[in-house]
Amino acid sequence: MLPIDLPANAAARNRIRAAYSPELFAKASEGWAEILSQHMTQVQAGETRVLNWNDPLPNVRAAREVLDQAPATATGDERVARFRELLKVMLSRGHNLHHPHYVGHQVPPSVPLAGLFDALGAVTNQVMAIYEMGPWGMAVEQALVGRLAETIGWDPAQSAGVITHGGAAANLTALLAARNVTLGDAWEMGVARSGPAPVLVAQAEAHYCMGRSAGILGLGTRQVVKAEVDADHRLDPVRLDASLTRLKSEGHPVIAVVACACATPVGAFDPLNAVADVCEKHQVWMHVDAAHGGSALLSPRYRHLCAGIERADSVVWDAHKMLFVPALCAFVMYRNREHSFRAFSQDAPYLFDASAPDLRDFDGGLRTLECTKRTAAYGLWGLWSLFGPQLFADLVDVTFDMGSQFHAKLSAAPDFETLHEPHCNIVVFRHTPEALQNATPEEVGMFQLRLRRNIIESGEFYLVHGVVNGVPALRVTLMNPLTTPEDLDQLLDTLRSRGRQLLS
Amino acid sequence: MLPIDLPANAAARNRIRAAYSPELFAKASEGWAEILSQHMTQVQAGETRVLNWNDPLPNVRAAREVLDQAPATATGDERVARFRELLKVMLSRGHNLHHPHYVGHQVPPSVPLAGLFDALGAVTNQVMAIYEMGPWGMAVEQALVGRLAETIGWDPAQSAGVITHGGAAANLTALLAARNVTLGDAWEMGVARSGPAPVLVAQAEAHYCMGRSAGILGLGTRQVVKAEVDADHRLDPVRLDASLTRLKSEGHPVIAVVACACATPVGAFDPLNAVADVCEKHQVWMHVDAAHGGSALLSPRYRHLCAGIERADSVVWDAHKMLFVPALCAFVMYRNREHSFRAFSQDAPYLFDASAPDLRDFDGGLRTLECTKRTAAYGLWGLWSLFGPQLFADLVDVTFDMGSQFHAKLSAAPDFETLHEPHCNIVVFRHTPEALQNATPEEVGMFQLRLRRNIIESGEFYLVHGVVNGVPALRVTLMNPLTTPEDLDQLLDTLRSRGRQLLS
Repeated sequence: MLPIDLPANAAARNRIRAAYSPELFAKASEGWAEILSQHMTQVQAGETRVLNWNDPLPNVRAAREVLDQAPATATGDERVARFRELLKVMLSRGHNLHHPHYVGHQVPPSVPLAGLFDALGAVTNQVMAIYEMGPWGMAVEQALVGRLAETIGWDPAQSAGVITHGGAAANLTALLAARNVTLGDAWEMGVARSGPAPVLVAQAEAHYCMGRSAGILGLGTRQVVKAEVDADHRLDPVRLDASLTRLKSEGHPVIAVVACACATPVGAFDPLNAVADVCEKHQVWMHVDAAHGGSALLSPRYRHLCAGIERADSVVWDAHKMLFVPALCAFVMYRNREHSFRAFSQDAPYLFDASAPDLRDFDGGLRTLECTKRTAAYGLWGLWSLFGPQLFADLVDVTFDMGSQFHAKLSAAPDFETLHEPHCNIVVFRHTPEALQNATPEEVGMFQLRLRRNIIESGEFYLVHGVVNGVPALRVTLMNPLTTPEDLDQLLDTLRSRGRQLLS
Repeated sequence: MLPIDLPANAAARNRIRAAYSPELFAKASEGWAEILSQHMTQVQAGETRVLNWNDPLPNVRAAREVLDQAPATATGDERVARFRELLKVMLSRGHNLHHPHYVGHQVPPSVPLAGLFDALGAVTNQVMAIYEMGPWGMAVEQALVGRLAETIGWDPAQSAGVITHGGAAANLTALLAARNVTLGDAWEMGVARSGPAPVLVAQAEAHYCMGRSAGILGLGTRQVVKAEVDADHRLDPVRLDASLTRLKSEGHPVIAVVACACATPVGAFDPLNAVADVCEKHQVWMHVDAAHGGSALLSPRYRHLCAGIERADSVVWDAHKMLFVPALCAFVMYRNREHSFRAFSQDAPYLFDASAPDLRDFDGGLRTLECTKRTAAYGLWGLWSLFGPQLFADLVDVTFDMGSQFHAKLSAAPDFETLHEPHCNIVVFRHTPEALQNATPEEVGMFQLRLRRNIIESGEFYLVHGVVNGVPALRVTLMNPLTTPEDLDQLLDTLRSRGRQLLS
């Protein structure tokens, strides 16, 4: 047992008080606001590079050097000065998603004020697991779950939902619920059983986290049956029907059918009503990965892309994609309220209070992978409360429209090859200058990859790559609503000029 | 195909530009810094309640009302005014972990500046999955992984680690790697196999996420074998040895042995060297859940609690617990570098670039549950770079010392019952005033639960509950280094006076 007033303890307490000092925080946060505002202005104006590229090993070394140079002692002012320097290091080496030339992954330049709402939760460390740890966080989350349920077309009293850390975790959670409901006792007894193996039927171009989920859940990645797509990359319901008929006749339990709204590679939206007809016929759990496209539901112009989603058993919808809030904020939605309690089950007497059973519905930890969870909903709740749903409709409309606009530009350019009719803001294409006329598909593909790497490392644009028919291609997600048609023209010109350099 | 300049599109673009406006952000962030600074000052001074309790249903209704009241149109100044109001709503209904009377869950009042570093990542939406999306985020993460590996006693070149969203996800990830390594082909083929079922051996008082992991991974929660603990709540290596001998002789594949540093209920640290001896003898994967206690490694005074951790195959260490950064930032560490690639496996040609194979080691998405991941390391990297490791030693020393100090106070008070000798800053006890002398254990237990609920809803203190020997008890984690011995005296007095009210 230690005495209460160790001298060492007093010194440690003094150092801690200095680190927690509200005065230090006031000065630091003022500087934080100033530095970030300046940065946001420059980036939006396109005055910086998009990506600040550095190779991994030197970058890790640099991060380690800064870490090892922390001063053992310093005055408050010295700490503030170093704090500001550290912020500048982080900004100078980061990725500038708010740059109009950011046309990369399905991760948005989040609305800056959404970031501030989220940041309030970070600084005060608001978390959840049980209701009492984050009562307002849970209230905000459940208010949004109700609002999204209505948007899908569900009765909030009958349906349910939770927020989790990302689309992959969200899809895993929904498929875990589907597995437990379909197999009955898999949670307690495991998935091993006599007879044909349980299978997961997933759209052939579904996100890799579906196969992963099968690996994690003990089904095995080989137990994923691909649901074939048509020429437009949409799930083919006729072949799905045939596939389910065969699987059922062979005795395979079918965990779920996974449809996409939209699928990752080219952004194709599946015909959800037709898929729902087939799932209902075979009495199979229908899961819709609407991580990217669910937000189309908030746009009167694009809502039709998700027609039929209300018939799904579970839906994943990422707010950190097309609702433009910072990562991560992924909704797992269940049409049947009871299903949301089927994913997990546990006994943690130190957490769940037997004297207050009414709180169980709001003890989110019962229904999420996470025990302690960030209040991931603050960004979305704040943004929605500030601007209302029109902003989300605008963001969908402008970015999805840009998909069509960019496709039109590509179609009009003889040195570019279009590869699909875009359904949304994802467009995949190839640059095919005349010099490549006699190149093999492998050469054409490698040219796309090298061209892209050249451009992203230069910081001029940030775009990604894809693979269509086995051949690499260029891929943009028009995720920045500040990108203009002129920026898109400039992208084509940059591809041309960098391409010429590469080929010469 | 849509024309490029729809009038609707122009109006939408104007509204979006207003929402993204750097001027709006500058004003909003300035207000944000001011409001949060004021809040931090008041909370640390104990001028607010700890928890702002409201029942769930009215709270959800309130959150929804605010959501539905978003003004369709507003000037910039009106937006800023509403923004400030919304921040105040969030703060007035939240949980004040920085209040000295917060002695609740294993979630810290994070160092305020760590929150600002984290918040920079949120506002600029820095994410990771592949190296190029978050090069500095990954650099920072890997610099920290190397530093923590050295602290454990591993060679950073031989070991590996990743950050994931919370201790539950981290333990799941490590156990998934253990399952895949132990069973060989479970990822592709599933866990079903002929012969005795695979089992997971977990410390009897290990966190509920261990049982959950068995449920998720397809093993089944019934395949968890409890490793019995001694009277001091520590894993008993002799009985572990006997248990492994029996399991092996019966032919059960053993996925892993889970030891704790420390276990959740009373914060007991297992004898890791003795556990390692047994695991080595039986050639079983040793996993240590050091989510809470791993940080003791940074304190010369308390490092001994984790002796032997360097012999584990995998370790989970949460920075959002005893390294005092905001949630979530959980490290999964592997002694054998190759094992970190065994948890997951996938093919995502649109993500991983065949033209740059050298980047694979830094494409974190290959090794984490998350595809898109927040740069969860900014808070820790910034904090460490600003104050150095002494601050972490101080935080461990002061809070762990308080565990002993509080236990001494309880031992000296005839109306309190101590239930264990604390190993760290977790202390479990009961209030047993004379009036309860003839009460049954059930009555004593229910009194603890009602007393606690009464106090937390009042906002005077925030503490949690536990269960020891089947009877509910009070539980504190002395997570706030600003809590003083006087606050702890006041806690006992508050328990006494609220207890008297309840009993009268």
